[in-house]
Amino acid sequence: MTPDGLTPDPGLPDDRTNDDRLLDEWLPGLRLVDHHVHGAFAASPDRAGFEESLREGPHGPVPSWMSAFDSQLGFAVRRWCAPLLGLPAHASPDAYWRRRAELGEREVTGRLLPAAGVEHWLVDTGYQGDRLLTPGALGERAGGTGHTVVRLESLAEQLAAQGTGADAYPEAFRELLHAATRDAVAVKTVAAYRTGLDLDWSRPEPERVRAAAARWLAEAGPLPRLADPVLVRHAVHCAVDRGLPIQFHTGFGDRDLDLHRVNPLLLTGLLRQPRVAAVPVMLLHCYPFHREAGYLAQAFDQVYCDVGLAVNHVGARAAAVVAESMELAPFAKLLYSSDAWGPAELHFLGAALWRRATAGTVRAWVAAGDWSEPDARRVVRMIGRDNALRAYRL
Amino acid sequence: MTPDGLTPDPGLPDDRTNDDRLLDEWLPGLRLVDHHVHGAFAASPDRAGFEESLREGPHGPVPSWMSAFDSQLGFAVRRWCAPLLGLPAHASPDAYWRRRAELGEREVTGRLLPAAGVEHWLVDTGYQGDRLLTPGALGERAGGTGHTVVRLESLAEQLAAQGTGADAYPEAFRELLHAATRDAVAVKTVAAYRTGLDLDWSRPEPERVRAAAARWLAEAGPLPRLADPVLVRHAVHCAVDRGLPIQFHTGFGDRDLDLHRVNPLLLTGLLRQPRVAAVPVMLLHCYPFHREAGYLAQAFDQVYCDVGLAVNHVGARAAAVVAESMELAPFAKLLYSSDAWGPAELHFLGAALWRRATAGTVRAWVAAGDWSEPDARRVVRMIGRDNALRAYRL
Amino acid sequence: MTPDGLTPDPGLPDDRTNDDRLLDEWLPGLRLVDHHVHGAFAASPDRAGFEESLREGPHGPVPSWMSAFDSQLGFAVRRWCAPLLGLPAHASPDAYWRRRAELGEREVTGRLLPAAGVEHWLVDTGYQGDRLLTPGALGERAGGTGHTVVRLESLAEQLAAQGTGADAYPEAFRELLHAATRDAVAVKTVAAYRTGLDLDWSRPEPERVRAAAARWLAEAGPLPRLADPVLVRHAVHCAVDRGLPIQFHTGFGDRDLDLHRVNPLLLTGLLRQPRVAAVPVMLLHCYPFHREAGYLAQAFDQVYCDVGLAVNHVGARAAAVVAESMELAPFAKLLYSSDAWGPAELHFLGAALWRRATAGTVRAWVAAGDWSEPDARRVVRMIGRDNALRAYRL
Repeated sequence: MTPDGLTPDPGLPDDRTNDDRLLDEWLPGLRLVDHHVHGAFAASPDRAGFEESLREGPHGPVPSWMSAFDSQLGFAVRRWCAPLLGLPAHASPDAYWRRRAELGEREVTGRLLPAAGVEHWLVDTGYQGDRLLTPGALGERAGGTGHTVVRLESLAEQLAAQGTGADAYPEAFRELLHAATRDAVAVKTVAAYRTGLDLDWSRPEPERVRAAAARWLAEAGPLPRLADPVLVRHAVHCAVDRGLPIQFHTGFGDRDLDLHRVNPLLLTGLLRQPRVAAVPVMLLHCYPFHREAGYLAQAFDQVYCDVGLAVNHVGARAAAVVAESMELAPFAKLLYSSDAWGPAELHFLGAALWRRATAGTVRAWVAAGDWSEPDARRVVRMIGRDNALRAYRL
Repeated sequence: MTPDGLTPDPGLPDDRTNDDRLLDEWLPGLRLVDHHVHGAFAASPDRAGFEESLREGPHGPVPSWMSAFDSQLGFAVRRWCAPLLGLPAHASPDAYWRRRAELGEREVTGRLLPAAGVEHWLVDTGYQGDRLLTPGALGERAGGTGHTVVRLESLAEQLAAQGTGADAYPEAFRELLHAATRDAVAVKTVAAYRTGLDLDWSRPEPERVRAAAARWLAEAGPLPRLADPVLVRHAVHCAVDRGLPIQFHTGFGDRDLDLHRVNPLLLTGLLRQPRVAAVPVMLLHCYPFHREAGYLAQAFDQVYCDVGLAVNHVGARAAAVVAESMELAPFAKLLYSSDAWGPAELHFLGAALWRRATAGTVRAWVAAGDWSEPDARRVVRMIGRDNALRAYRL
Repeated sequence: MTPDGLTPDPGLPDDRTNDDRLLDEWLPGLRLVDHHVHGAFAASPDRAGFEESLREGPHGPVPSWMSAFDSQLGFAVRRWCAPLLGLPAHASPDAYWRRRAELGEREVTGRLLPAAGVEHWLVDTGYQGDRLLTPGALGERAGGTGHTVVRLESLAEQLAAQGTGADAYPEAFRELLHAATRDAVAVKTVAAYRTGLDLDWSRPEPERVRAAAARWLAEAGPLPRLADPVLVRHAVHCAVDRGLPIQFHTGFGDRDLDLHRVNPLLLTGLLRQPRVAAVPVMLLHCYPFHREAGYLAQAFDQVYCDVGLAVNHVGARAAAVVAESMELAPFAKLLYSSDAWGPAELHFLGAALWRRATAGTVRAWVAAGDWSEPDARRVVRMIGRDNALRAYRL
């Protein structure tokens, strides 16, 4: 690979530098960092399971009177993934499913994952990880490197399952966090799902943490689920002390969250704290609050943001969402992620739609004379790759 | 009419199916369902009254230093309605008013209503219905069918006016609802105006309903106005039991509402309730929260949404708003409405601007290769017609 | 100057009226009213200070791993200001800074300020005014007229610094307001920064004002900073009585504010008060709540709004933001401002980007047939000039 992360293109004479090549010729070869993703399916789902995994919000089967394919994401699968499976663009859902089933998961992932053109995958293993490829296997299958992102809430739940006592909890969490992140590149919190982001984000006193732990551990049962605000705050502040980049789920996700309580602006009080200023804070997804996230990325030097997940789910509207994310946020503070989980279609589409959306957006600015072409290429590389390499020290 | 709701076009040979016709040729003939609308004026307003009815927000006359025509809606009236009255496009406000007054309301409605191309009008009769055409008269004048949508708050006010006692109120409301909706296709709530949507949406105990009714009925006076949160919740939960689709005003409207308290996301707690999952919930208008509404339509199988009212009021910006509404929402969950009230201009423009905006939006996706043309036509027909036929069992 | 605020163009024959000229030919000559701005630097900043002034949000120096030029605003400076300093468009940050330093602040302001094409500058002198040109000097340097906007919070702080007693405070504030605004065209409040806008906006009783003043004055110290909600409300209601237009900071600004607490919708309760209906209320900036601001401008006859500050900071995205601001707001209620502070680049860019964004927006509507060209010119002149002349009685 060339130093700037481009796959060398044998069709170009050696003396042509990036500055000589047009954006559209250059962008497909840019190797991305997908800074927040999950594993791809290790084994084939059935059709119902596949269609469910195209819907972010609901739990349970798709009603009979509708199709999961009748959405921007479903249309994007038929448009952009079908050709990689040897089908015409816009193949019907039935044809797509037949072909996918016929090829099997190994072949499907083998075609779709490398086509994403991702060099580093930062994998959150915290949700149904047993059904998915591990970070290592994902990287291998995709022709890149998998890295681990540790979910804070899972650590607390691990302590509960191990029978940790309330008095030991505050320090035990801190120790487990250090042990679990020895080889990790980041941590992640799903406070958005568990408590909402409208918390008092001050660091809780150890005494209060112990009291909260006593309550929670007493009720936690065999499948503990951390949703106590004091323990969530404790986890986040331990992570601040640990110093790795902290990813926050913000904005839309499945229906377990209250969307009006996961606006990233609700983190403002946390971001203002001096200790938090020293740690990169990554705002994930953000939609439909991506403009608000851009404001935070501009106002706080340690804050980064992306429009992952959204880019996949809005499909043909990805360019509009990407363009909106490029308003207030300094270009050094934007990142790429897919937030793909399950079907390798999502790992591929995240990258494919992002490339298409970003190229369309900056190309229009170049054409209108607002931006220069070298600047456009440089900014696209920052967002797709360089910012993440720097912030995660990859 | 053909089975797919298209007016047969004599200029097309019989063997040309929809798949052979281009979107722009096909869309003008698509017969819509306007799933939320009010009557058109039964008699001509004076000029001041006409101009007031072009303003959604304010109460009272237009100040002397401005013109109600100087808005996106006013420009759209001059652009798209003027030719139907025999004037050039962009006719001046004075010329438009003179011509309108000269023709009279019967002729104006006779020209504008049929031009909307609407087959089913779902008419909320709950606001100043005495000045407006009835659902039957509207359907007849327009060349379609009028249906009745019953406003929940009006039923409560009817009980108060009849002198219903507090003890009888809970059951009396339920009985009146059943009687009043015998021939209705849906109910509607204007909780947004009366209490805001930031309520505890749990089902209130009968004892609390009686207590609230006692308070309200004691104070209601000769023109009762339901604004008690407990009674609004009672009405909504009775409607859930009744099982008809429930329309919620959300988003902008006149200045009686607090816009920050009518975000459809504030209904999340209601939508999660198992009994509510069985009833179609229609989020009306939604602007500027239409992306949030799209999230709800994606997260909850029973939720639908539209950008009615907004499409008229944003005029030349309708395509941008329609495109934003087509991000997260599954295509089976989007609906068309005008929310027209009063001037037949609004009944016509709702449809005309929606067709233009939707065509422009999907045409661009087809041109860019993101969507196929058959998919585009199919989705437009779902939104404009088929989804409503299914959800309202028309 | 011609009566419509256009610089006469000697290249056009006398008998060509505005109606004969195309928008693109006409708009560069339109003389604007910048209804909310600060002074330009009186003396050259150093490079670090210059770059800091390109960032709205953060306090303190730009981190070494990023550049303040890598933002939409930075790109706009290199694109649009560089040629006025004799550099090629898209000049590098180093080249730009060298050239700027070489020319000196007097030459830079002498080139950039007149190029804004602004006739009236309404200058808020309330923030670090000692580093900036006075309203008079700004007007003179720019070839226009400077006017004064008085910041309400500064008056309270002046009283505190003078040792005013709590008992005298309510009336002393009122008297100082009258004295200080004798030659002012408007007042401004930064309640957004000091208390947030989520206040009970009722008029406080004198007794409560005295009590709040007693607390505040006791703690105020040598550099008093008004952040007491009762005193802020008192100041605003005194301003309502004074009758001058009141400018409210709303939407984004530096990181001292909580963005989710400065949504202009939070002023709804204030705007509904009958006395407030008599006074023009100017919602500044508004981003990302400019659609919400447009709703308020439509719902309340006395409310105006702009997208100042945002237009500069979103650069190439200015057309998208301007277009969104032209949805619900009646055209008589939109205003132009730059909110420039410090570098004359911001005074120039505000106007240049607004012209470009607005022209692009309305030109597209004219090209699509939605608007007529004369209407487009008329609306642009209303927003850029006429609305402000009327509302501020200039």
